Amino acid sequence: MEEKEVLEERNHYVQEIIELLNSDLEKEEIKEKLEDYHDNDIAQAFEEVTPDVRKKLISLMDEEQISDIFSYIEDLDLYLEEMDMHSVARIIENMDADDAVDLLEDMDEEVQNQLIEMIDDESKEDIRLIQSYEDDEIGSYMTTNFVSIKEDSTIRQAMKSVVEQAGENDNIMTIYVLSKEDTFCGAIALKDLICARQNDALEDLIVTSYPYVSDREKISDCIEWIKDYAEDSYPVLNSEMKILGIITAQDIIEVVDDEMGDDYAKLAGLTAEEDLNETTKQSMKKRLPWLVALLFLGMLVSSVVGVFEGVVSKVAIIVCFQSLILDMAGNVGTQSLAVTIRVLMDENLSGKQKIGLIFKESRVGLCNGFLLGSLSFLFIGIYLIVLKGYDVFHGFCISGCVGIALLVAMIISSIVGTIVPMFFHRIKVDPAVASGPLITTVNDLVAVITYYGMAWILLIELFKFY
Amino acid sequence: MEEKEVLEERNHYVQEIIELLNSDLEKEEIKEKLEDYHDNDIAQAFEEVTPDVRKKLISLMDEEQISDIFSYIEDLDLYLEEMDMHSVARIIENMDADDAVDLLEDMDEEVQNQLIEMIDDESKEDIRLIQSYEDDEIGSYMTTNFVSIKEDSTIRQAMKSVVEQAGENDNIMTIYVLSKEDTFCGAIALKDLICARQNDALEDLIVTSYPYVSDREKISDCIEWIKDYAEDSYPVLNSEMKILGIITAQDIIEVVDDEMGDDYAKLAGLTAEEDLNETTKQSMKKRLPWLVALLFLGMLVSSVVGVFEGVVSKVAIIVCFQSLILDMAGNVGTQSLAVTIRVLMDENLSGKQKIGLIFKESRVGLCNGFLLGSLSFLFIGIYLIVLKGYDVFHGFCISGCVGIALLVAMIISSIVGTIVPMFFHRIKVDPAVASGPLITTVNDLVAVITYYGMAWILLIELFKFY
Repeated sequence: MEEKEVLEERNHYVQEIIELLNSDLEKEEIKEKLEDYHDNDIAQAFEEVTPDVRKKLISLMDEEQISDIFSYIEDLDLYLEEMDMHSVARIIENMDADDAVDLLEDMDEEVQNQLIEMIDDESKEDIRLIQSYEDDEIGSYMTTNFVSIKEDSTIRQAMKSVVEQAGENDNIMTIYVLSKEDTFCGAIALKDLICARQNDALEDLIVTSYPYVSDREKISDCIEWIKDYAEDSYPVLNSEMKILGIITAQDIIEVVDDEMGDDYAKLAGLTAEEDLNETTKQSMKKRLPWLVALLFLGMLVSSVVGVFEGVVSKVAIIVCFQSLILDMAGNVGTQSLAVTIRVLMDENLSGKQKIGLIFKESRVGLCNGFLLGSLSFLFIGIYLIVLKGYDVFHGFCISGCVGIALLVAMIISSIVGTIVPMFFHRIKVDPAVASGPLITTVNDLVAVITYYGMAWILLIELFKFY
Repeated sequence: MEEKEVLEERNHYVQEIIELLNSDLEKEEIKEKLEDYHDNDIAQAFEEVTPDVRKKLISLMDEEQISDIFSYIEDLDLYLEEMDMHSVARIIENMDADDAVDLLEDMDEEVQNQLIEMIDDESKEDIRLIQSYEDDEIGSYMTTNFVSIKEDSTIRQAMKSVVEQAGENDNIMTIYVLSKEDTFCGAIALKDLICARQNDALEDLIVTSYPYVSDREKISDCIEWIKDYAEDSYPVLNSEMKILGIITAQDIIEVVDDEMGDDYAKLAGLTAEEDLNETTKQSMKKRLPWLVALLFLGMLVSSVVGVFEGVVSKVAIIVCFQSLILDMAGNVGTQSLAVTIRVLMDENLSGKQKIGLIFKESRVGLCNGFLLGSLSFLFIGIYLIVLKGYDVFHGFCISGCVGIALLVAMIISSIVGTIVPMFFHRIKVDPAVASGPLITTVNDLVAVITYYGMAWILLIELFKFY
């Protein structure tokens, strides 16, 4: 099927649901037909119909079904105004605790507090637990919806327990096993339980050394190995080895998306990711910190150039190529930076590997610098001779100056772009903070001193141009 | 538990396995104890022991278990030299087709072809199918390992069929339903099947309008809605609506990671992501295209500055602040670029929303530009007066020139950083190609013309400084 057709097919489901809701069919009939559709499509239809039809849809479903649909809706707070607080509270009780937390966070604090008072103690406890974690702790992404059995169960008892819990819990692929004291002692794959015979021993199915996370663990520290294990879920344990909740593959998708989006933003010099709905003021707050810092760093670079004012006034043409050298040095530095940040994230590098990376980056800087230095020596020389009227000797002297400065600047930039994030990583600061803009400014300083210094030495002192 | 302790605990499992393998226990005993460990940990132990112990481990396990462990090992081709080709072929047959494809791709072509000839037809067919897709098509990520039942089964027959297939297939959370003609007609959640009573009708459990993907669909087109549905797996259909395979949540994690890593690299001006094992030559190939392009663009900017050579020689101090203005304009442009690229990815923007984003970005550019322009007017003026000996009027005239140029450059950069990726997106080119470096160079041109032009107008013509 053509891609466009598939997209239309997908939207077609939503259209069908909308038509169904707007039809005159009996409520029972509509309810039955809705069972053929995915909750996400029903959620989209929910957002596109009029408030009256929304009320109709809600009246068709029980609270559990409504909770399932609501977990797919962003900006749910907008629609809750159409419902009474008690119904909303019941729905929140039926939602997974992590979806409930997301929903409550979008609301005004007043409404939030009102609702929390109205929900049952068990749900309230779960919600408060998840809210107690910082954004960078893995506990903030967990769900309290999981299936567990006791260590001393038989296969038959285990299966019965799973079926009972499956009514309330969606995450049944991995069944967590608890000791008599309720501590975590392993996991069983549902697949193995289904295929087991009645007389098999449960303990043969248990993987006791199953990977787990600590609730206060930093996401950036555990996300890489979590991806390596490629499991459907991981238990989140507290310091007493009791299971508080689980992290599911869906949570991992969200975490990876958020973490990478964050790094992407940092590379561009933003303090955090922005979306379409940011106000001007919010955007300014996210961008100004770096911009102000860079302004002052830029003034520092400017004052260094100011030292060479004498050189500039004598060989004004030199100035034309300053931006070329600074830009190329900056770009090379940013390339090294991006590669190093990703490598630091993916692997635990030994000291030897780090030195190896620095050497490799300098080699790349050297080779690229040599190539580009030669290209600029040639073309700038031609430019000066043909378009600016310099004689061959002077023309190529100046372009030689540019070429050498380019080569030196590019080698140093590669090294700086590799060492700076390693240094930040070493002192336990997120290397992505060493964003493109910072590296570029540091490289500017180096490039400027190299270039004008060389112009002064070569052109003025050595060749006594002026 | 302290984060460090948890990490040690995890590595501890691997250590235990290594000690177990190196011990003198009976093979049967070692095999039984190994069942307590996760395949990923056994895989890591496999990589850390000596070749002899590796042989011992392989002899302990049947081919299916070895396949499971091997799916966790990167660079598997290094270890296969220690095994004979026939064993390797049997192992490949037991692996999921997508893991087998990854493994074969890492090998030399000769070895690859030899092995493919040795494996059975069914596995060969699956492998060839997955290999037939381009890297940017969703079919290249699918696995052929899924569970299906016929539409006309009873609950009992369905459950029996699932248990039979669960022996070979891991992905049992979602059961796909096929018509008599073997076309896709919906999905059943395993949870619903387990909880169903014997006499319920199967069709009540089937979601007929379950989301699916087309095998040749571009990943970048479907990844966003796939994440929205938050399902464990999605069927991959061909043009005749037959299921070829499925995309699992684990595949989605990999896709998201790869897509974002790619965008990250592009923002830094790399043509593709690099890893630790790239050779110098490979790195150069990935970085040179942009660097050469930028060199020539930089020479263009230089020739524009060359036009203003007269201005420079008269007001040499002007040059000091050129890098400041170009850097700030570049940074602002990159920030707008990063935000716009992410927004274009996440949402389908209407024409109205796009205009809105351009206006918002220009507002942010204006406000930040005004703030930073004022800061630079003040501090540069003070610098010139105190450190360079200019009188108040001339000092603030020059810094005013810088401030205004900064403001103008930042507004224009914000707009350019927003419009350029939108333009690329419109002509169906990946907007991430409009990388930071390109935007920076475009902004350089604008900034340089603004700055020197203004210096010429204000300082020379208007105030007749010189």
